[in-house]
Amino acid sequence: MLPSNSLHVCSCWCLCPSAGLSAAKLLKASGLDPVVLEARDRVGGRTFTVQNKEAKWVDLGGAYIGPTQNRILRLAKEYGIKTYKVNEQENLVHYVNGKSYPFKGSLPPMWNPIALMDFNNLFRTMDKMGEEIPRDAPWRAPHAEEWDKMTMQELFEKLCWTRTARRFATLFVNVNVTSEPHEVSALWFLWYVKQCGGTMRIFSTTNGGQERKFVGGANQVSQCMARELGDRVKLQSPVYRIDQTGDMVVVETVDKQTYKAKYVIVATPPALNLKMHFNPELPPLRNQLINRVPMGSVIKCMVYYRENFWRKKGYCGSMVIEEEGAPIGLTLDDTKPDGTVPCIMGLVQSFKQFSVIVLRRICEIYSKVLGTDEALHPVHYEEKNWCEEEYSGGCYTAYFPPGILTQFGRVLREPVGKLYFAGTETATEWSGYMEGAVQAGERAAREVMCAMGKLQPNQIWQPEPENDEIRALPFVTTFWERNLPSVDGFLKFLGVSTFLSAAAAAGLVAYKKGIIPRS
Amino acid sequence: MLPSNSLHVCSCWCLCPSAGLSAAKLLKASGLDPVVLEARDRVGGRTFTVQNKEAKWVDLGGAYIGPTQNRILRLAKEYGIKTYKVNEQENLVHYVNGKSYPFKGSLPPMWNPIALMDFNNLFRTMDKMGEEIPRDAPWRAPHAEEWDKMTMQELFEKLCWTRTARRFATLFVNVNVTSEPHEVSALWFLWYVKQCGGTMRIFSTTNGGQERKFVGGANQVSQCMARELGDRVKLQSPVYRIDQTGDMVVVETVDKQTYKAKYVIVATPPALNLKMHFNPELPPLRNQLINRVPMGSVIKCMVYYRENFWRKKGYCGSMVIEEEGAPIGLTLDDTKPDGTVPCIMGLVQSFKQFSVIVLRRICEIYSKVLGTDEALHPVHYEEKNWCEEEYSGGCYTAYFPPGILTQFGRVLREPVGKLYFAGTETATEWSGYMEGAVQAGERAAREVMCAMGKLQPNQIWQPEPENDEIRALPFVTTFWERNLPSVDGFLKFLGVSTFLSAAAAAGLVAYKKGIIPRS
Repeated sequence: MLPSNSLHVCSCWCLCPSAGLSAAKLLKASGLDPVVLEARDRVGGRTFTVQNKEAKWVDLGGAYIGPTQNRILRLAKEYGIKTYKVNEQENLVHYVNGKSYPFKGSLPPMWNPIALMDFNNLFRTMDKMGEEIPRDAPWRAPHAEEWDKMTMQELFEKLCWTRTARRFATLFVNVNVTSEPHEVSALWFLWYVKQCGGTMRIFSTTNGGQERKFVGGANQVSQCMARELGDRVKLQSPVYRIDQTGDMVVVETVDKQTYKAKYVIVATPPALNLKMHFNPELPPLRNQLINRVPMGSVIKCMVYYRENFWRKKGYCGSMVIEEEGAPIGLTLDDTKPDGTVPCIMGLVQSFKQFSVIVLRRICEIYSKVLGTDEALHPVHYEEKNWCEEEYSGGCYTAYFPPGILTQFGRVLREPVGKLYFAGTETATEWSGYMEGAVQAGERAAREVMCAMGKLQPNQIWQPEPENDEIRALPFVTTFWERNLPSVDGFLKFLGVSTFLSAAAAAGLVAYKKGIIPRS
Repeated sequence: MLPSNSLHVCSCWCLCPSAGLSAAKLLKASGLDPVVLEARDRVGGRTFTVQNKEAKWVDLGGAYIGPTQNRILRLAKEYGIKTYKVNEQENLVHYVNGKSYPFKGSLPPMWNPIALMDFNNLFRTMDKMGEEIPRDAPWRAPHAEEWDKMTMQELFEKLCWTRTARRFATLFVNVNVTSEPHEVSALWFLWYVKQCGGTMRIFSTTNGGQERKFVGGANQVSQCMARELGDRVKLQSPVYRIDQTGDMVVVETVDKQTYKAKYVIVATPPALNLKMHFNPELPPLRNQLINRVPMGSVIKCMVYYRENFWRKKGYCGSMVIEEEGAPIGLTLDDTKPDGTVPCIMGLVQSFKQFSVIVLRRICEIYSKVLGTDEALHPVHYEEKNWCEEEYSGGCYTAYFPPGILTQFGRVLREPVGKLYFAGTETATEWSGYMEGAVQAGERAAREVMCAMGKLQPNQIWQPEPENDEIRALPFVTTFWERNLPSVDGFLKFLGVSTFLSAAAAAGLVAYKKGIIPRS
């Protein structure tokens, strides 16, 4: 037992790489005296960099950053952590119906004109729907109730006319939120895509969320913050009890330590609030919310090769794989920036595939997609199943099943007494990413400072200036992308024009036959 | 710290009125030495009987029992707890479109023939779909995947042609599982109804799940079991840690006690497994499951009156209320069996209504439905919001959002090392009810005995003989209920018969005109 009355703020459980730590960093910089209680034996949460001989270093968890993620880039810059671009020089490849189609750009092109119209309309519509959803309060969108009652699968059934579009749409959900279209609320998913900057920004490598990685691994940002905080960071200290009945908040950990603080920032995913026993109990809406927002499911698989054979064949290493039963849906080149340790990173999102993940099957699909047996001979393999982690609950982030966001979303960030809530799930920009974690942690820290009278309420939310070096380019849409009709619109157009042509032809015939008098 | 090596089995957290306690009761009767760790300061979990001057006694939680619930009836009989029938002598009333329609029977009758066909087809179809779902393994139903990807709202949209049927269907989900049709998997809901004995058994008062209550309150069953177990039942002992790394399982509670046991039965709703820190971590599938099965939301409201005025007006007190914005959807008479303490019990299922629950609004709707100002003058009120209970998470039971049952359902009862799982959610008959809790508790106890070599595996699941006094009657369907077409079928029939009539008429004309030769 270690009652320490001097502590001002406990920031519990930084499961997000930077939510708990970045809150503590800001509080310390403001002259306060925070302590960080981390459940695991390491900092970094859902980022996890491992070092070994074969891989040098490898990010088994969150890894990618890109333009518009200015907060995490600011922290990295402060600590001198460099970024490098994920290789996308050669062709990407879209594998569908057993064939490989090389392409350039963010999304695979469609050759069938009907599929093209359908695909174009789908992505345009998702972005358009996103426009009317407020980043900070999706439950206040004009169609919030209607969209929240629908799963993404239902929306796809309404929007898509072709199997091609529907299948790609499924992969789009799988890859972005590691769950299935029938599991997630349409309102929530559309909000998620919107707050990342839209369909192109979230899905793209170049100019998007996967543009870069940190040289040396993503975990360094947390490690640097932890080093700065020194022995304020307590590892292996899972919190199981939070008591707010006295003047100070009393926090107890599984390793039998007791901490007292004036304020507590809980920086876990919402569902992991359940790991703690609260006195007094949480308010009903929060108690219900934390029961209703599960984490996605993902396994990250890195296959190492002697040679970077895909680049020789004109492929950059990015594969979009649509095949029933394929273990992997999306890959990226994970070779080191200096060209050493050739590697392909692949994501397993479907739980149906989880039981059958074996390296051989992964290599087989790579070999089919890249059209070479070289893919069958890996030299090393790294894998991380995030579903088994008690203190993550899954990865990348919490998802909202239908009906939850409109009923319970509004208490996501609402303080409970002296408890404040961080975690990337509470962010309004790049929620679900490292960027969101930093935004959330710093916002929660400023909420505490505001409660202490050190800040004004209007200073809690602060915009972040754009990074000097890593700038966002707009995604330019072509005239056709903006104006191509949907399949539905096209069929209506066909109908109307057939009718008009027929009417015109009939008129011409009538005119010729003299039925209409020639004046 | 109280290491007690003599303990054989800890049955943690009997949140179900009888799951933990009935497991312990059976273990004790078999010569073992169980301890029950109860999180709260009372036994009974989701049953909760309060005594006071105004209400005498009142069930603020689970209360109803009926035929086919033979296990809970067996326990009640053993302890001499009597049951009485919920009053259903006079008319029930269906309030819809601002009008009250008195009726008899389980479901309100429909006068509009199209609505009647629709309604009839809906309930018949739900039961028929249920027939192909195995009670003990719904994930193995022939259409499991397809139905699990659908919400009940989607199924209703497919099945129902009329607003009348769709609206009542919504109420049917609200009342039975305290959640919304767009929140729950169709596979799960159809399974839930099936394992309660079908649409009629689950929804009926007479001959159904709401036929009876216990004289003196439902909590008595748990209290009697707890009395029998004596100081083996430890109240206010929420478990926060379960360590299986040694020979004995070590269980630690928030009140800083340590228990050691050979086996542990965890008898909480699945989601509340999250309140415990496990060493080693739970397997990935269970870790994902417990994050994905939230509890329903309900407030139980009892309004007391000086007089039983509704019976004088020919109403039994059962109201089925369909009105936008009405706080209550279903009521039952809650007057004491001797006719004293007149009372109406109402359920609030929609979270939308939760913020506006005031007694005045409840009385207003009762006054409209029953057509009398007497409803506006209550003499007493009792209310219990189950959503605020940390150690219930909600009520009545856990629900499965789309996609979860087929992916994770199969680990619901799967032991993890020396941990066995009870709780009404793990039952295969009346899961979600007191009956299911007893089935689950006794099954888990026999699993432990089997692990100890005291039972054969084929003795774990045991059928229960029917109660002598409270017998189930079959629900007899009429010829019309079985054979009335659906609206869809009827329209097709209309189409075909119009065509045939037209063809016959044309034939007749042709014959008369001599086009068909008269031989």
